[in-house]
Amino acid sequence: MFVVPLIERKRDGGALSPEEWSAIIAEYTAGRVPDYQMAALLMASLLKGLDRKETAALTDAMLASGARLSFDGLTAPRVDKHSTGGVGDKVSLVLAPLVAACGVAVPMMSGRGLGHTGGTLDKLEAIPGFRTDLSLAEARAQVQKLGCVLIGQTPEIAPADKKIYALRDVTGTVEAIPLIAASIMSKKLAEGLNALVLDVKRGSGAFLPELERGLELAKTMIALGEDRGCPTTALITAMDRPLGRACGNALETEEAILALRGEGPPDLLEVTYALGAEMLLAAGIEKSTAKARKRLEHVLGSGLAAEKFEQVIEAQGGNPKVVEDPSVLPQAQAVEVFKATGTGIVLRVEPRAVGRGVIALGGGRQKVEDIVDPTVGFVITVKPGDRVIEGEPIASVFAQDAAGVERGFEALRTAIVIGTKLIEKPAPLVSHRVTKSGVEDLAKETAPAKTRR
Amino acid sequence: MFVVPLIERKRDGGALSPEEWSAIIAEYTAGRVPDYQMAALLMASLLKGLDRKETAALTDAMLASGARLSFDGLTAPRVDKHSTGGVGDKVSLVLAPLVAACGVAVPMMSGRGLGHTGGTLDKLEAIPGFRTDLSLAEARAQVQKLGCVLIGQTPEIAPADKKIYALRDVTGTVEAIPLIAASIMSKKLAEGLNALVLDVKRGSGAFLPELERGLELAKTMIALGEDRGCPTTALITAMDRPLGRACGNALETEEAILALRGEGPPDLLEVTYALGAEMLLAAGIEKSTAKARKRLEHVLGSGLAAEKFEQVIEAQGGNPKVVEDPSVLPQAQAVEVFKATGTGIVLRVEPRAVGRGVIALGGGRQKVEDIVDPTVGFVITVKPGDRVIEGEPIASVFAQDAAGVERGFEALRTAIVIGTKLIEKPAPLVSHRVTKSGVEDLAKETAPAKTRR
Repeated sequence: MFVVPLIERKRDGGALSPEEWSAIIAEYTAGRVPDYQMAALLMASLLKGLDRKETAALTDAMLASGARLSFDGLTAPRVDKHSTGGVGDKVSLVLAPLVAACGVAVPMMSGRGLGHTGGTLDKLEAIPGFRTDLSLAEARAQVQKLGCVLIGQTPEIAPADKKIYALRDVTGTVEAIPLIAASIMSKKLAEGLNALVLDVKRGSGAFLPELERGLELAKTMIALGEDRGCPTTALITAMDRPLGRACGNALETEEAILALRGEGPPDLLEVTYALGAEMLLAAGIEKSTAKARKRLEHVLGSGLAAEKFEQVIEAQGGNPKVVEDPSVLPQAQAVEVFKATGTGIVLRVEPRAVGRGVIALGGGRQKVEDIVDPTVGFVITVKPGDRVIEGEPIASVFAQDAAGVERGFEALRTAIVIGTKLIEKPAPLVSHRVTKSGVEDLAKETAPAKTRR
Repeated sequence: MFVVPLIERKRDGGALSPEEWSAIIAEYTAGRVPDYQMAALLMASLLKGLDRKETAALTDAMLASGARLSFDGLTAPRVDKHSTGGVGDKVSLVLAPLVAACGVAVPMMSGRGLGHTGGTLDKLEAIPGFRTDLSLAEARAQVQKLGCVLIGQTPEIAPADKKIYALRDVTGTVEAIPLIAASIMSKKLAEGLNALVLDVKRGSGAFLPELERGLELAKTMIALGEDRGCPTTALITAMDRPLGRACGNALETEEAILALRGEGPPDLLEVTYALGAEMLLAAGIEKSTAKARKRLEHVLGSGLAAEKFEQVIEAQGGNPKVVEDPSVLPQAQAVEVFKATGTGIVLRVEPRAVGRGVIALGGGRQKVEDIVDPTVGFVITVKPGDRVIEGEPIASVFAQDAAGVERGFEALRTAIVIGTKLIEKPAPLVSHRVTKSGVEDLAKETAPAKTRR
């Protein structure tokens, strides 16, 4: 295959045809196009962009490189949620069983933590015995039986995306909206969904911090989903501070369980309900957001959601007692209280600093092959805007030893900024709803964004 | 070495420090940075540019990757010429012995033909027995003895450039002025020169057809040379039509020999004299262009230049009789006259079409490993602006057989456009002189170019 003219065309701002994208992705996946040519094409694509047709062709090519889940004979509507990731984001662990308990089938495929962000698989694996590496056949059977499965990307799903993502990671070509959108959607479309809800994070802890870029990503993914018969909507949610209180795998799993029992932190529940309502609307189970939310609150309050999580944990080899008694989760060796370093207002709880703190404690990954310690992390009980008094306990550090505690304190001293006057207003928790029809400014914070692709 | 942040910085329009360029080039040459990371960095460099400091650092790093010719004890000034390449450009074969015969040492390192352009090494190797693969020690000894050597890039010279050039060739990252400039200058600065003269081609057959881009390349290379103690000047010369009449290796060598005997086509002599005068000025042998030109004409007319070429050929293992009797050169099996396809004015002799015609005849390379047939090619006796009558002989095709002749005719039918009115005025043969002080418009064709970096 003569790749250079395609690289040159993209470099000069031109577009590749769907057939060309299909051919180059197939040849690359088969090892017949070398990494260096794909790297040059990816960099040119990042800097020159892909148009809507090209992004669609790339998505289709990556989707076509692998298998797809099929649910012939399943009557329940299948809806999944995807988050662009952040710090303290344990929404999936609450949302999947909750929405499944409302009668929606949720075949959820998640990722591992990398860099400052955590990953759902790592959180689930904090539960003793929990297996995330189910085969596609096992996953399908479990969805049919329980209406919910929580697994990792299997080798059969979008192998082209797997290979390209690994290359992007080492060639500085991660931060391109068309490439991100195609990567996410090629995997999600392989799940055989009837609809998809996206949680696009904004703020300093998000993958794409700027609201405008988040909206662009949301619109790009919505177009890809809608064009492929998978109705897609997105909520823009805040990641300028961690979500909930717990950051670290077992700690977040515990917080998710508390939330399923109705004892979760309000911001976590708020985001979960907002996304859950979107999923019920998309599934056709409710017709209005208000009604959908009522149903979610009722199912959670009745204990059905927690019960569903128990069933899923048991089906996937985990110890289901964890829902009743979270102390079944592995526990940190050293726990210390962190006190406010001054009197005033909490100006920032910087998510990237918290995420890097989790890595420093041994609870995150800098390289794919790193092993995570599920026990370590933080519970931070203050939010930007809160008043604090010097010496008041505002967080706890969970570490392997005293040295770890010290590293944790250091991270919190950087992450939690106390001052006299709130300069930057925290972002609304759920600020925008994006559908194929446009952008709805839920928080009416500013004029609606005008960017449209 | 952590390369990704460097790629990301360049991708986002930032600059790498000299230390960073030095480290990444050294690590890449040593095989510790993979091709795919270098490919991404090169594409980002092409699209975002390198500033003057970065281009200098890249040049220095590639220069430092290998050996340098040293001429301790040699009193003659050492000056070389480099051309950006074109079709029919056999200037080096005339210029090197001519300038050497004027008392300048010319340690000339040339390349092979690739794509539509020819290469000096291929032309020299058309001479039976001629060796271009001399060692650096042999080259140095010959310069000391004869004042002239004509060789290829040895493995010791700028190995980093060799590796990077090969990668650029397959990743669509050739056409970047800073990368081109650094590649050329890292090799030329290794020759241990006192001065350098550049022949930057313009027009459809040039590597960079637009005048503006040619001027930018010239300025970039001049800055690199001047900053490194190698005074550098450039002439912009025409490559909107082939130079001289012959295109094809042995045919061009023959034409060069005729030129050394005073019988060359006027455009070839004109460009040779212009570049030669620059070299004599740079060497301090003459103080004015007019005097330098007089000396060149005299040395050529006296037969001293042809004699010098004979000596060089003999020293490098070739048959020196070729200068007296060019029929010593290998001869094509099939020769046919090409006739004007209509009556009118020659509007274009398209160099790329002629160059591709030479490849179609077997006399050029599409891949580095292709073997060239020295005998084949064209002699085209018309220039744009000439009046022709239908059926009049205007060229000859030199081929391996009748089928080759037919391919040659086809190429000439495309290349030579005959019409009624000259739409595009041919570019002046030598249009601009570029020095560290600025651009001189020698032909006063238009307002001087305003681009300055």
